Amino acid sequence: MFTINAYGATSATEPLVPMTIERRDVGPRDVLIEIKYTGICHSDIHHTRSDWGPVSYPVAPGHEIAGVVTATGSEVTEHAVGDRVGVGCMVDSCRECDECRKGNEQYCLKTHTFTYGGVDRDGRPTQGGYATHIVVDQDFVLKIPEGIGLDEAAPLLCAGITTYSPLTHWGAGPGKKVAIVGLGGLGHMAVKLAHAMGAEVTVLSQSLKKQDDGLRLGADHYYAISDPVTFEKLAGTFDLIVNTVSANLDLDAYVSLLTVDGTFVNVGAPAEPLSINAWTLFMGRRSVAGSVIGSIRETQEMLDFCAEHRLGAEIEVIPVEKINEAYERVLASDVRYRFVIDISTLA
Amino acid sequence: MFTINAYGATSATEPLVPMTIERRDVGPRDVLIEIKYTGICHSDIHHTRSDWGPVSYPVAPGHEIAGVVTATGSEVTEHAVGDRVGVGCMVDSCRECDECRKGNEQYCLKTHTFTYGGVDRDGRPTQGGYATHIVVDQDFVLKIPEGIGLDEAAPLLCAGITTYSPLTHWGAGPGKKVAIVGLGGLGHMAVKLAHAMGAEVTVLSQSLKKQDDGLRLGADHYYAISDPVTFEKLAGTFDLIVNTVSANLDLDAYVSLLTVDGTFVNVGAPAEPLSINAWTLFMGRRSVAGSVIGSIRETQEMLDFCAEHRLGAEIEVIPVEKINEAYERVLASDVRYRFVIDISTLA
Repeated sequence: MFTINAYGATSATEPLVPMTIERRDVGPRDVLIEIKYTGICHSDIHHTRSDWGPVSYPVAPGHEIAGVVTATGSEVTEHAVGDRVGVGCMVDSCRECDECRKGNEQYCLKTHTFTYGGVDRDGRPTQGGYATHIVVDQDFVLKIPEGIGLDEAAPLLCAGITTYSPLTHWGAGPGKKVAIVGLGGLGHMAVKLAHAMGAEVTVLSQSLKKQDDGLRLGADHYYAISDPVTFEKLAGTFDLIVNTVSANLDLDAYVSLLTVDGTFVNVGAPAEPLSINAWTLFMGRRSVAGSVIGSIRETQEMLDFCAEHRLGAEIEVIPVEKINEAYERVLASDVRYRFVIDISTLA
Repeated sequence: MFTINAYGATSATEPLVPMTIERRDVGPRDVLIEIKYTGICHSDIHHTRSDWGPVSYPVAPGHEIAGVVTATGSEVTEHAVGDRVGVGCMVDSCRECDECRKGNEQYCLKTHTFTYGGVDRDGRPTQGGYATHIVVDQDFVLKIPEGIGLDEAAPLLCAGITTYSPLTHWGAGPGKKVAIVGLGGLGHMAVKLAHAMGAEVTVLSQSLKKQDDGLRLGADHYYAISDPVTFEKLAGTFDLIVNTVSANLDLDAYVSLLTVDGTFVNVGAPAEPLSINAWTLFMGRRSVAGSVIGSIRETQEMLDFCAEHRLGAEIEVIPVEKINEAYERVLASDVRYRFVIDISTLA
């Protein structure tokens, strides 16, 4: 075990502070990563504030991690010192259940190990990427290809894969009309990815405030959902709607925008139950679904896809001392489109 | 135009009575059918009682129609006098929209023409199969193969196709675990069909009262949903759940029974909106969907499938004067499993 510098929460109500955390020793199949950049995900805020249930403090959050390998265990074959690598929302899974064997670690039937707030193999709570180093089993370490900066790559490990996975699973591509609800951290990646996949992309945003950005990022159309004409005009239009917004929506209104056999996928997590009229689903064999991050295989595929298409996140890089301010700005939707912490400021 | 004997409702509150209705003359592409048997669908009751909105009275319901061709128009090529034929829930569609062109008439973007309670091409309300004859465009007339009695075939035109379509659309077959919620008119056909498709079939019924029937009809397992142990035991089990029950369900409990990538399909129509926690969908990329009857192509495929597998509905044949009594028994779930009207009693 060794001790490193980190930044995290000591309670649900206090600002985040500098702290030290412990990492397990590098085992035979482990990779030691010197973290360069870590993205700030809205989940980090929910978790450190105990919004989703009791939390074991202190906790260093962060699951959008990009860095460089500085040591490898004796049995590590997939990664080498000096490699540019990433770590996302999970650092292990049971490896034995049907879903793990199918390569769906994100749906591990015994629950995958969360990068932070989970339980490590030694029984201690896992700690995330607001820290100088992390030790991760080689199977959960992703390769970040040349052509993407480590800073703009970091958010791909959560915001990127969370949108890439449902887009590919539900067939976004040429000839498909895809709507993205919300143009934030997840939404802006969804637009870039769906556009690069060849789909016709529409942003449905609260207002037209970010319209120029949306079109620049790859959207073909941009509508304000605050305008009721939007829902009339777009009825029956989309093969796929990816909802990145956590706020509760009028689901009947959105699902009515789907074509026959269209799917509305939630990747945001509204606190209130979803409510929908059965007839809205009947009238067109429509589906409402949910999707969580993506598998390790998919995540690597997404990183390679991003490198090939020269896609990274749109980011604002901050030093650690700005984390609490950044949290407030995330809550106020005042970021275009992801904060990324420069971990060198933590040393 | 010609006048025939029928049986129908003159208001939302009076019992059904003998009446006469008019049919359009047999046009060049029309088929005149002498109706032999018509099934009683729960929708007939909802419609005649204005449960789903205002109704134009008088109305003769019935959309599970089996009979024999007695005349054909000059351009009819698909059917001949003496053919055993059926008519289901729709008698026309726009033929021009994307969905009609794809062969999804049931999802016609201009709405298909309902067999009763719709608007016929001459602008008059359509009238259903509680009648001695019906005139239908040849494209909406199905062939009932030898090997199925016309009486047991009648319910296939709604109860059969309504369950066959989602079962095939979502891949019921060998290696798949399928649950059917409710063992009524639709449910008992769903069990027979899913079993014949090779799926492992489980019935989820309110109690174990019909367990012997369920197993005889082809179910491999039968559980009472009133027993809370059922939901614990079956968590994460099913690839597909077809819900034939109109009552409002605890959707989170049912969706939790799905495997990763599983789908819960409503074919019943609950009056209250569906409510589900977004996390129940997330945890396994699960979907909630709806499905309405099936296309004409699928309906023919279903009838051929039933003939091949020697499947018909389980029926209780009644004379017309028992229709009102049958309605009460349907509402009390006191039928195994479909009432079919012997139309010869109407002559």
